Amino acid sequence: MRFKFSLMAIGLEVIIIVLFGLFVEYETTQQVNATRSTKTDRFLLLYPLFQDVHVMIFVGFGFLMTFLKKYGFSGVGFNLFLAALGLQWGTIVQGLLHDKGKKFHIGIKNMINADFSTATVLISFGAVLGKTSPVQMMIMTILEIAVFAANEYLVTSQFQASDTGASMTIHAFGAYFGLAVAGVLYRPGLRREHKNEESVYHSDLFAMIGTLFLWIFWPSFNSAIAVTGEKQYRAIINTYLSLAACVIVAYALSSLVERRGRLDMVHIQNATLAGGVAVGTCADMEIPLFAAMAIGSIAGIISVLGYKFLSPLLANKLMIKDTCGVHNLHGLPGVFGGLASILAKYLGMSTVSTMAMQAAALGSSIGSAIVGGLVTGLILKLPIWDQPPDEHCYDDSVYWKVPKVRELDPQFFQHANHNHLEHEV
Amino acid sequence: MRFKFSLMAIGLEVIIIVLFGLFVEYETTQQVNATRSTKTDRFLLLYPLFQDVHVMIFVGFGFLMTFLKKYGFSGVGFNLFLAALGLQWGTIVQGLLHDKGKKFHIGIKNMINADFSTATVLISFGAVLGKTSPVQMMIMTILEIAVFAANEYLVTSQFQASDTGASMTIHAFGAYFGLAVAGVLYRPGLRREHKNEESVYHSDLFAMIGTLFLWIFWPSFNSAIAVTGEKQYRAIINTYLSLAACVIVAYALSSLVERRGRLDMVHIQNATLAGGVAVGTCADMEIPLFAAMAIGSIAGIISVLGYKFLSPLLANKLMIKDTCGVHNLHGLPGVFGGLASILAKYLGMSTVSTMAMQAAALGSSIGSAIVGGLVTGLILKLPIWDQPPDEHCYDDSVYWKVPKVRELDPQFFQHANHNHLEHEV
Amino acid sequence: MRFKFSLMAIGLEVIIIVLFGLFVEYETTQQVNATRSTKTDRFLLLYPLFQDVHVMIFVGFGFLMTFLKKYGFSGVGFNLFLAALGLQWGTIVQGLLHDKGKKFHIGIKNMINADFSTATVLISFGAVLGKTSPVQMMIMTILEIAVFAANEYLVTSQFQASDTGASMTIHAFGAYFGLAVAGVLYRPGLRREHKNEESVYHSDLFAMIGTLFLWIFWPSFNSAIAVTGEKQYRAIINTYLSLAACVIVAYALSSLVERRGRLDMVHIQNATLAGGVAVGTCADMEIPLFAAMAIGSIAGIISVLGYKFLSPLLANKLMIKDTCGVHNLHGLPGVFGGLASILAKYLGMSTVSTMAMQAAALGSSIGSAIVGGLVTGLILKLPIWDQPPDEHCYDDSVYWKVPKVRELDPQFFQHANHNHLEHEV
Repeated sequence: MRFKFSLMAIGLEVIIIVLFGLFVEYETTQQVNATRSTKTDRFLLLYPLFQDVHVMIFVGFGFLMTFLKKYGFSGVGFNLFLAALGLQWGTIVQGLLHDKGKKFHIGIKNMINADFSTATVLISFGAVLGKTSPVQMMIMTILEIAVFAANEYLVTSQFQASDTGASMTIHAFGAYFGLAVAGVLYRPGLRREHKNEESVYHSDLFAMIGTLFLWIFWPSFNSAIAVTGEKQYRAIINTYLSLAACVIVAYALSSLVERRGRLDMVHIQNATLAGGVAVGTCADMEIPLFAAMAIGSIAGIISVLGYKFLSPLLANKLMIKDTCGVHNLHGLPGVFGGLASILAKYLGMSTVSTMAMQAAALGSSIGSAIVGGLVTGLILKLPIWDQPPDEHCYDDSVYWKVPKVRELDPQFFQHANHNHLEHEV
Repeated sequence: MRFKFSLMAIGLEVIIIVLFGLFVEYETTQQVNATRSTKTDRFLLLYPLFQDVHVMIFVGFGFLMTFLKKYGFSGVGFNLFLAALGLQWGTIVQGLLHDKGKKFHIGIKNMINADFSTATVLISFGAVLGKTSPVQMMIMTILEIAVFAANEYLVTSQFQASDTGASMTIHAFGAYFGLAVAGVLYRPGLRREHKNEESVYHSDLFAMIGTLFLWIFWPSFNSAIAVTGEKQYRAIINTYLSLAACVIVAYALSSLVERRGRLDMVHIQNATLAGGVAVGTCADMEIPLFAAMAIGSIAGIISVLGYKFLSPLLANKLMIKDTCGVHNLHGLPGVFGGLASILAKYLGMSTVSTMAMQAAALGSSIGSAIVGGLVTGLILKLPIWDQPPDEHCYDDSVYWKVPKVRELDPQFFQHANHNHLEHEV
Repeated sequence: MRFKFSLMAIGLEVIIIVLFGLFVEYETTQQVNATRSTKTDRFLLLYPLFQDVHVMIFVGFGFLMTFLKKYGFSGVGFNLFLAALGLQWGTIVQGLLHDKGKKFHIGIKNMINADFSTATVLISFGAVLGKTSPVQMMIMTILEIAVFAANEYLVTSQFQASDTGASMTIHAFGAYFGLAVAGVLYRPGLRREHKNEESVYHSDLFAMIGTLFLWIFWPSFNSAIAVTGEKQYRAIINTYLSLAACVIVAYALSSLVERRGRLDMVHIQNATLAGGVAVGTCADMEIPLFAAMAIGSIAGIISVLGYKFLSPLLANKLMIKDTCGVHNLHGLPGVFGGLASILAKYLGMSTVSTMAMQAAALGSSIGSAIVGGLVTGLILKLPIWDQPPDEHCYDDSVYWKVPKVRELDPQFFQHANHNHLEHEV
């Protein structure tokens, strides 16, 4: 991958820097109709929420993808690379779209939205994890964020739909985009379980680092771009409670569906987060608290059942192999979140047109994801992007220098043993 | 554990959701006597402190309990489950108690207090780690939080004692509750060192993730519910300095008590945090900075000596086997923190009755913990909760599907080795 | 190391507590010319930035140094010890210097600056990692922070140079101080690659925890002491973009310089951070965004090339063995950041004297670091500080009780295997 990857990465970075030079400026306080001190405090008040999202993107998604025994470097390493690329590209694309191609200013909201745009890519990355090359992922990042930004613009500016926590525009979108790509790239050789496609004890613990930071900071994700005040406050509490309820139900279901009642780490690492995805669209709406908790509980059920019964079906019947099961964590709960928002609007006595717009947003997110994903998949299928052969899938050593010594051997601490003998004998 | 655990968890979640429907509402800005913007900013100003506490509860406590070589899934996994359950239940119980059974409103303070109430359970969990079933832990969570909330109400509303950082009401309470449970559940078969009751090199590093996040964010824990302004500020600085001093002394003592001067990971993972526990009650009082540092230093000494000399004694003489040594991290430093607050009141020229109230708070916390723990222990001893037999203690595989491949083997990276040979030979 | 280490640590802590008693007080709101509520909010607005820096110091630096296969306890453990010592000592030294030896008040800015002062020590620690005793590191901490505070005082108060993100005063200073110490302590026995001086698969993943938290929170590091408002805002955005650009370029270069195009974990763990170091001095200046990104990109190139070509040269020709390669992460990018600030001043039409002051700051930082490091190295070379012999370098078991069982063995989960057989056969 030496030259193709390197030169493409450097080329992209040069282009992005030039685009920043042409189109992006600071948002100075003079440009905002607020007093200097208020404006600045607003920046600093939102900054911790931004940083929570930042941790989710880089540590959360990154470590969540270290569960495979031999693909941890790639999981966390390519996650860093793709997210760093995506946030720069997302800033440009979203800025140009919202400001109609004129020079635009960058502030804390742009930073949050840029991080959001990378989330779609990282979700799709989960679907194809281990089966694609870094060059392919780079291309997917560029294409997916462009489609994402277009759909997000449509949903928020044209349909004026609500999607504060982005159940539809990020989670459902990212999942179906990734599934479409995975479908096009399907290879019969990977149909049966690959020898590398499993975890070891400690790789599952590394993945829990990702799960926990995602879980903890999800209220920030769902509220970061909410309207300041009451609505933001609401989004935080609803998400906090939805996630808590989701955990209890996900554990219960995980134990229930296993023959001997044992918990499955795949469910614990993923399904516990479904409550955050599903409550996203409704998070800032005036739904009662128990409804947020019910949404989280149902999402937990959907997600565990998806992992247990739907994923094998997708792989065997639809020929879509979804490495991380993003369909169960982001796809189904995202769709459920969109549907829940229509119901919430209905119960909240909204007009039919408001409800229709929510439905349009959901349809547009899924539709653009599938079309975009299929086209992207076809491009990635061109045999020039160094896609790894079957036997080298889920294996870091294709892309990384891996340590010669794999693990600590029994004679590990010579000195300790020596002293031990010395004193004990 | 298939049906018992699952059905109990789902049943509890349904009950909690119903209780939320009946009793809990948003705290809207209209309900607070402050202007809209000020109130909202207050929410957002406290939100980062809440998130720090949230990280402590889920990552801090969770990873701290991954030190056992075969019990990491349970350590971090049950921690997530119990905390998610506890925060929902804690919200209900504390809310009903403080608002005399009426409908109450939930805001950022309730979220912080709910997280706090889970801390007591997680401390007690540490005392019985590896020897109890998830069903037992679920029951303990429900009972302990009820007793905790009652004692906390007594201490703050009736005695009007000071305990900002909750040295007494959380740390001492959680420790003695857990010790009482552990005492009742004592089994001779676990008296001698169990073959699973040890760490491996990397499990100790995982545990350090927990230690560090607890250590870093402890100033937020001790200040999150302090009175806004000066006192909150003080609580942060006192805790920051107490913890720093504690580290130095804990390292020194750890080296001093070992025959060859080597540091013990158990001390480093735990005793370095004792300064945060001990300074809790005094954190927002007008004590001089050097006093905070002295409190931290003494707590470090107490804690290391407790691990070295007292824990073996408890296990052998009092038949209380304390897996994580919570007595040394939370129990003794918590009591010391309560005593320090009496001294601080005395030196600060407080009235005798103020000092008496601090003493009553300490007595009530320990007393209610021991009584509550004994009763809980007796309930947990009923032979219907699937308590694991001796030989399956400290072993994830009873409750979790564990990876078939345990560790990376020497032929781990086929591809890497292959290339290596190819080029080098 | 039993008595020497313990008694020195306790002695130092006692001295520090006495100094706090003599010289340090709270900063109460009365002492600040601001209304009570504004002042307090300022504290709480900066507190999340402080906590980000705190995470960088303890988790970031700590886990970054766990990459060695047998030196993880020391990496993260001594990091905690040295940082906790350094922040107390740094508070005293900086306070006394800035307030001319009078009693001074401690607030959030002092806490940030104290954490900063420890960063220099931790950078230098990286240069000598694995080859020095805790006693030596304790002495280095005391001496280095004194020299650092003196230089920092010179740079900010005398030269009045700009160095918000401290590229010069922390990063270049810490690196050259450490290199000077490493040079003096050079031992021919360690010239060739030591058998312990390598990573294993999971130790590299632990190190990525450090990398990611450093990367994520670097914008807080570079902006925490910036002037409130516009400049702080700017420092955040410039650092965020510089780091993102740096990642792309560092990955590209890492692949480019390796024969087979494979990425090197050493580069990913370190060079991706060089953009944060390099943009530090300019972070709050009115440079265009694309310039921040260019600085980050160049820093990524410099850093990877440094690891690939310069480090071996330093080790073999200059006899400076730099364990973590701090020269490539902190040294070169720090110097580059200083030079970039001179250029930025020039392009911003600053006076010649302003530019000269930046140059003086850079010269003073490097000069004081080298002189201070050489003197410190000579002191550390005295044969009374228990420096480990060659064969015990990079080995935890000299200073730590290490687990008897090193790793999980194939028969790890008896219970799991047993059940497995039971059901499958």
